Amino acid sequence: MPTPPPRFADRLHNAIERAGSPVCVGLDPVLESLPAVVRARHHEPLAAIEEFGHGVIDAVAGVVPAIKIQSACFERYGGAGVSLLERQAHQAAERGLVVILDAKRGDIGISAAHYAAAAKRSGAHAITVNGYLGLGTVRPYLEAGLGVFVLVRTSNPESDSIQSQRLVDGRSVGELMGAEVAALGAGCVGECGLSDVGAVVGATKAQDARALRERMADQVFLIPGYGAQGGTAEDIRGMLRAKRAGAADAGVLVTASRSIIYAFERGATEWAGQVRGAAETLRDEIAGIVRA
Amino acid sequence: MPTPPPRFADRLHNAIERAGSPVCVGLDPVLESLPAVVRARHHEPLAAIEEFGHGVIDAVAGVVPAIKIQSACFERYGGAGVSLLERQAHQAAERGLVVILDAKRGDIGISAAHYAAAAKRSGAHAITVNGYLGLGTVRPYLEAGLGVFVLVRTSNPESDSIQSQRLVDGRSVGELMGAEVAALGAGCVGECGLSDVGAVVGATKAQDARALRERMADQVFLIPGYGAQGGTAEDIRGMLRAKRAGAADAGVLVTASRSIIYAFERGATEWAGQVRGAAETLRDEIAGIVRA
Repeated sequence: MPTPPPRFADRLHNAIERAGSPVCVGLDPVLESLPAVVRARHHEPLAAIEEFGHGVIDAVAGVVPAIKIQSACFERYGGAGVSLLERQAHQAAERGLVVILDAKRGDIGISAAHYAAAAKRSGAHAITVNGYLGLGTVRPYLEAGLGVFVLVRTSNPESDSIQSQRLVDGRSVGELMGAEVAALGAGCVGECGLSDVGAVVGATKAQDARALRERMADQVFLIPGYGAQGGTAEDIRGMLRAKRAGAADAGVLVTASRSIIYAFERGATEWAGQVRGAAETLRDEIAGIVRA
Repeated sequence: MPTPPPRFADRLHNAIERAGSPVCVGLDPVLESLPAVVRARHHEPLAAIEEFGHGVIDAVAGVVPAIKIQSACFERYGGAGVSLLERQAHQAAERGLVVILDAKRGDIGISAAHYAAAAKRSGAHAITVNGYLGLGTVRPYLEAGLGVFVLVRTSNPESDSIQSQRLVDGRSVGELMGAEVAALGAGCVGECGLSDVGAVVGATKAQDARALRERMADQVFLIPGYGAQGGTAEDIRGMLRAKRAGAADAGVLVTASRSIIYAFERGATEWAGQVRGAAETLRDEIAGIVRA
């Protein structure tokens, strides 16, 4: 009998321990930002984006445990863009990367099941989702065997107008979302002690993130906003989960996009090496924070 | 100089007055539910879905003012599904229907702009969006010339766990979202007096919907949940906006999917005529409620 695939939390845990650091590279390809040598070789935007994506995946596989693919960057090119996303997600998975589809989907019942089917066929292991319709609407993704990262406290400044508002019981709307995430996630904890239901929590909202960690012991926090956007090492430390000494998995996955994939010098021909270098630097930096 | 296209609110208003009723047919094609004659003709699921969608569009054009296309039903077939969605959205627009892409997107900054570009290239006039990241993230869709319907109070039972929660100021989370929607929408009101920023408000949440209408005078309410799902004529009446006597546009757009597109008898060959008949019945029913 074939071994069933590991559940998402364990797959991610194993990848993080193997890489020695909980970091994720965000693949958000935008034509205007691609290396000049890549743009010069292609007339078609998608052909340039394809070469670039292959290069990024090759550069970061073996360096970081996970990649997050921004669906919007591909969808803007219609069906051909979506087909390319699927090819690149499969390629990343084949190279041993844990693949997170950053699609921020959220719909009810059968529509959620369709979105889950779409993510599965792309080869992604997990998907970002929006829980405003209620966390019950997140179940179809789990039933399809995907991990999920629910938007809880996002890093963008506009998010305060909804997520920071206070409820009568003293919690913020973000904390309400966090509590609902924790409740849903309690039913799907892997051998590693973490849940298949994670949360997106911005490093730029460090005070809120600490409060969320107290209520969300078993969630992986997918963390944008570190570094250039303002999140610090101290902010990350406040988001860690208790763990055994020396482990790399502390319930966080720090994600960086532009600071890694566009880390090459203008006009560089060896741009992929510079992307790899940036990924290695982030990997080591975050390992230093988490393993201390 | 060519006339600029009308803004979304005016386009929708004109279409509603022309049709005499504010109704929308939801195109949520699922292979298993298609007419037997259509399924029998095609080996490929997407070919059957294409014939069905064309048939539905032909059947309802000239009967109802608008169509809402469920993106998930197409995305589950990957790039080829998305290409079909684009063809069908264009076809619906060419037939004079106002086209709403039901994609429930929500992302920040440049990613939102990518999603807006994707919706534009499909030929859609408006898109459903999720405002949990803050209403500032909705601006890129408006800047792309799209109308938006922001999820405010959704019809599904799981939504209460988030949207019904009370804030310290006495409002519910749904009412907070509604107030943010009204504030954003104040900047883009058309000649008809309605805003390009509308709201999704379920007929099944009639009491909340009445309260929302008091705070959202200029919003078009896109209303699922009427009929089979429990929403009544009285519920719709409570959601109307003040209007001149006899007008069909009262700031609502009642949407129905399965009760219209699957209104044929099992094995029917003249299924499209039955779909048209169901659309006509809904059109007349809602006209009776709104124009009284």
